[in-house]
Amino acid sequence: MKIAVLPGDGIGPEIVDEAVKVLKVLDLPFQLDEAKVGGAAFDAHGHPLPEHTLKLAMDSDAVLFGSVGDWKYDKLERHLRPEQAILGLRKNMGLFANFRPAICYPQLTHASSLKPELVAGLDILIIRELTGDIYFGQPRGRREAPDGEFKGAPEAFDTMRYSRPEIERIAHVAFQAARKRNKRVTSVDKANVLETFQFWKDVVTEVHAQYPDIELDHMYVDNAAMQLVKAPKKFDVLFTGNMFGDILSDAAAMLTGSIGMLPSASLNAKGQGLYEPSHGSAPDIAGKGVANPLATILSAAMMLRFSLNQEEAASRIERAVQAVLEQGLRTPDIFSEGTRKVGTVEMGEAVVAAL
Amino acid sequence: MKIAVLPGDGIGPEIVDEAVKVLKVLDLPFQLDEAKVGGAAFDAHGHPLPEHTLKLAMDSDAVLFGSVGDWKYDKLERHLRPEQAILGLRKNMGLFANFRPAICYPQLTHASSLKPELVAGLDILIIRELTGDIYFGQPRGRREAPDGEFKGAPEAFDTMRYSRPEIERIAHVAFQAARKRNKRVTSVDKANVLETFQFWKDVVTEVHAQYPDIELDHMYVDNAAMQLVKAPKKFDVLFTGNMFGDILSDAAAMLTGSIGMLPSASLNAKGQGLYEPSHGSAPDIAGKGVANPLATILSAAMMLRFSLNQEEAASRIERAVQAVLEQGLRTPDIFSEGTRKVGTVEMGEAVVAAL
Ligand SMILES: CC(C)[C@H](C(=O)O)[C@@H](O)C(=O)O
Ligand SMILES: CC(C)[C@H](C(=O)O)[C@@H](O)C(=O)O
Repeated sequence: MKIAVLPGDGIGPEIVDEAVKVLKVLDLPFQLDEAKVGGAAFDAHGHPLPEHTLKLAMDSDAVLFGSVGDWKYDKLERHLRPEQAILGLRKNMGLFANFRPAICYPQLTHASSLKPELVAGLDILIIRELTGDIYFGQPRGRREAPDGEFKGAPEAFDTMRYSRPEIERIAHVAFQAARKRNKRVTSVDKANVLETFQFWKDVVTEVHAQYPDIELDHMYVDNAAMQLVKAPKKFDVLFTGNMFGDILSDAAAMLTGSIGMLPSASLNAKGQGLYEPSHGSAPDIAGKGVANPLATILSAAMMLRFSLNQEEAASRIERAVQAVLEQGLRTPDIFSEGTRKVGTVEMGEAVVAAL
Repeated sequence: MKIAVLPGDGIGPEIVDEAVKVLKVLDLPFQLDEAKVGGAAFDAHGHPLPEHTLKLAMDSDAVLFGSVGDWKYDKLERHLRPEQAILGLRKNMGLFANFRPAICYPQLTHASSLKPELVAGLDILIIRELTGDIYFGQPRGRREAPDGEFKGAPEAFDTMRYSRPEIERIAHVAFQAARKRNKRVTSVDKANVLETFQFWKDVVTEVHAQYPDIELDHMYVDNAAMQLVKAPKKFDVLFTGNMFGDILSDAAAMLTGSIGMLPSASLNAKGQGLYEPSHGSAPDIAGKGVANPLATILSAAMMLRFSLNQEEAASRIERAVQAVLEQGLRTPDIFSEGTRKVGTVEMGEAVVAAL
């Protein structure tokens, strides 16, 4: 089982270190190979996704990813910025299916901005298409406006697009995921304005015919943003495109109050996957030893389950994380009166001990 | 002062009726002309935005708009659906500047999903560009995928675009609005992924040079969705494009707990404007006499202020709305223990009485 370990920038290295400790204690035949990615790779090799890093990832069964990005790279041209690494990995590896659970841990319900009764027991699975949409659509760039009120003026443009097979494959993923849960899928679109998402809605409706046991409804993205705030527990699987998924999955993660706890998985058709925490690189707290490693440790658990076929080990990690929460250990992001504040390393070692 | 009154669908007619009563009692020289729009216009004339409705709106100083949309029109071809009316009015009248205040009324703080301390005193102004972006960009449609993994497959596509003058004019609106408030603008983009929004960020930064008294920061849209949930009071003016503004303004409105109270204004370069409540047509409660007319009444107040130069009358209406809240009157959407539940007409008449 070959695992590419890409710590990245900001708090990435610290939190990935703890996840690696957890993996090592499992005593499974892993081969762990580390490489630089993002700003760290730019500094060392002049590119956020160097050839050898991409190759390592492509040749592995799974990628354990920390996070990329730091303000200090803001002035670089877009193709050299850290975020291009994650986009490049998604596109090159064909990681079209992004799973982002938004779960409210019973021990952390109070940490949500929402009233406890609205989030207690919350468990949404967001499925975001990850290799299409306006993220990768061509053409894009700058030009003179070809028509309209400001014809001839400088303008910038991008192309949103989805093809039928792209929508079909992610719709199957969503319906199949719902089957293992509460059998409800909410497909989020903007069919009232966008051609792309009218097509999305049509194709999703067609694919749904193969899943008579699953309840499907359609919701406009603006309404979905409202319903997430108003009554998030009404969702089971929330399923959408790349751009809307970016926005809604972050909103949903923040709603739980425990974004520092939320893992994610990005899979391709072969089951190869990239696993990363839902939170970002948090350069403001990097190197201070206070970042929460649990989202990354739980991402490692998802990796064991989805890409390495080690369900047993995955569950062990998840139980160990539950155990440290029960013990009252908290990094600062989830700390509250009456619990014990610990740092990144102490939290990681507590999970190791619980294993 | 010519006002076009377009009640539309769902609860539109009921709530606009109350706003019209309020306008009439002001005893100002208004000429009010009513026309059908949306589904109601489709039923009567075969088109959601008939020629005469558009002409009436274009020839008026301001449009008082209810709401459009109903599930029963879902099966119509896109260009005949009710929503096309509002898009057509925006585009034809050049209503590029959308103002959507997200205010948490002291009397209604408890109605928010968020913990009271996070929303008490909340007062954000969202400024959304309303005639550009992927809403109107050409080309758009269906075709065979011209390239990529699924070359030749059926696909749908849209074009996101912003020209320099479009960004400049809305940026001026945002900075000038901030000047009358707390002098802080957050420009929301996705410059790390989209050419359009890298350009947006660049142009906004340039325009900002003319407003040294205003603090500007830039935030990615996914982060903005998170910050709205986490700490909404940190925003003063939140300023963004058409698509992101659609999503974020609805999320922000819902956060306040009083979306039934929130007005909006959409202005063009001549000061002509369209005024509508932030909420939708709510077909589920249409005709039941329970809809909250206050967002529409407050939209009429915005109309007096922005398009008709009647600041005094605008403030009178706003004070009257405050007064009915103080009296404890509540429509069902904002009702709570200890207040008096009233219907649409009773609420409208209470505002008239308070005037
Ligand atoms: C870093 C950025 C390009 C990325 C995205 O927009 O997809 C991030 O926000 C995410 O959600 O993983
Ligand atoms: C009805 C729809 C086309 C419209 C939009 O997307 O702009 C609405 O959601 C709004 O925000 O006014």
